[in-house]
Amino acid sequence: MQLDIDRDRLIEAMEAQAAIGATDNGGLHRLALSDADKDVRDWFVKQLSDLGVTVRIDEFGNIFGRREGTDPAAAPVLTGSHLDSQPNGGIFDGQLGVIGALELLRTLEDSNIETRRPIEIVNWTNEEGSRFQPGLQGSGVWSGEFDLEAEYERTDREGTRLVDELERIGYRGDVPAEPREEYDSYFELHIEQGPYLEAKGKEVGVVTGIVGLSWGEVTFYGSADHAGGTPMHLRNDALVPAAELIVHIRRLPSTLGERTVGTVGSMDIQPDSINIIPETVSVTWDVRDPSDAVIERAIEQIEADAKAAATREGIDWEVDETVHTSSVRFDKRCVDAVQGAAETLGYDSMQLLSGGAHDASHLAPICDTAMVFAVSEDGKSHTPAEHTSWDDCYRAANTLANAVVSTAEPVND
Amino acid sequence: MQLDIDRDRLIEAMEAQAAIGATDNGGLHRLALSDADKDVRDWFVKQLSDLGVTVRIDEFGNIFGRREGTDPAAAPVLTGSHLDSQPNGGIFDGQLGVIGALELLRTLEDSNIETRRPIEIVNWTNEEGSRFQPGLQGSGVWSGEFDLEAEYERTDREGTRLVDELERIGYRGDVPAEPREEYDSYFELHIEQGPYLEAKGKEVGVVTGIVGLSWGEVTFYGSADHAGGTPMHLRNDALVPAAELIVHIRRLPSTLGERTVGTVGSMDIQPDSINIIPETVSVTWDVRDPSDAVIERAIEQIEADAKAAATREGIDWEVDETVHTSSVRFDKRCVDAVQGAAETLGYDSMQLLSGGAHDASHLAPICDTAMVFAVSEDGKSHTPAEHTSWDDCYRAANTLANAVVSTAEPVND
Repeated sequence: MQLDIDRDRLIEAMEAQAAIGATDNGGLHRLALSDADKDVRDWFVKQLSDLGVTVRIDEFGNIFGRREGTDPAAAPVLTGSHLDSQPNGGIFDGQLGVIGALELLRTLEDSNIETRRPIEIVNWTNEEGSRFQPGLQGSGVWSGEFDLEAEYERTDREGTRLVDELERIGYRGDVPAEPREEYDSYFELHIEQGPYLEAKGKEVGVVTGIVGLSWGEVTFYGSADHAGGTPMHLRNDALVPAAELIVHIRRLPSTLGERTVGTVGSMDIQPDSINIIPETVSVTWDVRDPSDAVIERAIEQIEADAKAAATREGIDWEVDETVHTSSVRFDKRCVDAVQGAAETLGYDSMQLLSGGAHDASHLAPICDTAMVFAVSEDGKSHTPAEHTSWDDCYRAANTLANAVVSTAEPVND
Repeated sequence: MQLDIDRDRLIEAMEAQAAIGATDNGGLHRLALSDADKDVRDWFVKQLSDLGVTVRIDEFGNIFGRREGTDPAAAPVLTGSHLDSQPNGGIFDGQLGVIGALELLRTLEDSNIETRRPIEIVNWTNEEGSRFQPGLQGSGVWSGEFDLEAEYERTDREGTRLVDELERIGYRGDVPAEPREEYDSYFELHIEQGPYLEAKGKEVGVVTGIVGLSWGEVTFYGSADHAGGTPMHLRNDALVPAAELIVHIRRLPSTLGERTVGTVGSMDIQPDSINIIPETVSVTWDVRDPSDAVIERAIEQIEADAKAAATREGIDWEVDETVHTSSVRFDKRCVDAVQGAAETLGYDSMQLLSGGAHDASHLAPICDTAMVFAVSEDGKSHTPAEHTSWDDCYRAANTLANAVVSTAEPVND
């Protein structure tokens, strides 16, 4: 069978969620567990309840809606993403994944389609990781990758504990944050956040896996001295080796792999004064590649270069890897379901790897998993300039809907 | 005649001022026009009044004390420095220059020594320039280099206007902030803030001039994109050219002059997130050299390198020089007075240039000027680790006293 979701209703729901925490410039500022996050959760729960879907909130605030299947013993198909946003982010990101799944349920209701397997929709808590670190937190706790109690204690910049914010907004549920039963599969729709689909003129992306990732920080320890009185040869400037490392990380991908990316996105400089030689400087790294071995080599090279640069300047340094996630290959069965849906619908698709980590990264060890990517204009994301046309939103959501419903096995097909 | 100041009284006064705005770790946090600055000004005015010295406060808060000479027509000798400090700075810096001048006046009173010329002592407002920019502000207004009304409007990070803070602490005086008469000369004692005196085993420094200085900022304008999804060749990373420029500025002095120094001390990165490619990055420069021509060449090279680095990355850039001060050669008469004082006192001295700008930079165009440098241990300054031994404080203050008194022409010699 082929499902056709309601394009106008999808757009209407996208606009409704985008209004909650909207910024003046068309973006979205809906940090995890903020008032805006509470409001969009309330709105989402109401949509599910209006549909007659059974809602449950787990103890980490993940929201599930369950539409029963005809076979009480069948393992459910799970689909969803996240409604929280980056600071001044965009309105599409993961939101499209939740709204696309909601539109699937509405279409099934409209069409009186029953499935053998239950279908569950999910909104994961704190995917973004900007207010509370780490990101992918709700799916991480649920999948057992993270420890519930440890994540409860995470604090934001003001020192507010995550668990207190969950309580405050009324989303600390009483259902255990763990798979209550065996799941058949997980499908997640997300915008690409990269330029490949647009560059190749494709309409939808069939995601075959997620690249591996390493995050870390290198800190250099120099000495603060007066920029006027200290001769060059007596300096121990913490910023110079940091700058050399930044240049090195820009060059690194070209020596390692076709798909390797390396980024320094954040720095801290102390004391950060125009006429004082920097004493302590830290730089972050973000390295990704489809091959875990390439990531290992990249980290070795960062360590070697940090050492060489620090030694040249005669100062100490420290290298600390903070996040390391292995690459993920999605299961053929689920990838084929997405590919088949795109083909059935006549969309021009391509298979690609995700350069960003997603909640699907945590789901892949739990059950067969795949993802759908919607076209990102100019590859932009996490900014109000993030954009996916309504046509592309519709095509991606329709692909998700057909992949999910075929996997859930429609009984009145 | 040879003057010998009171070493114990000098130390006592140094300790008294250091207690006002003291930090737990032995440093000093006495930002311009803060409550601590008001307290130390009140203390300073009381010391002057107790001495019978005539105090006047000018409309920019500069505090002058005048000890009359025997010749009503004679041009006065001015001496002093500043009592404000950097955030978490040291207790010696310019404070020693004010306290040394105070001890000179006390010694003259004790010894009933009269001079033909009046001697004036001064505490300049906001030398440091950390709370309100620019630094050397009080001397800059007084010398006519800066415009009084424009400097009144400067604001700190909280948006508080300088003139309002002057009013609040009660130091907006009614005397015009300008030389009211011709000045014979200006002598300033300051710690070296560099390693030369200690490295050469000298006891006091005879400063022959101040190197020229250029401050500025280069800003690079890239695009913010997702660090995972954006291939390397499609990036416009604002941090990479900034890093190249930092490395270039580290190398620059070795291509220009023996005494050239170049520093990047401060940076700003937006949005400053581990997984977002930096969109806007600015880096400051601080370049100094005894030759103004060398500084010109350094700025040309910074501009050329900023352009080359930005062009490689395919992004825009902007170069903005914010401060430019020409190098200063002090007058032989005043330098000789300092050199003669050190020799009379039997101190092992050396002549050197100041790598840092001082209020003396603004005084040099007004009248004959020279400076005395006290030994800075490890060349450290603007940190609680800043240190000058009491012996070195004493020797430098004694040198100042003898240079000033000989220039002021003692009449009962």
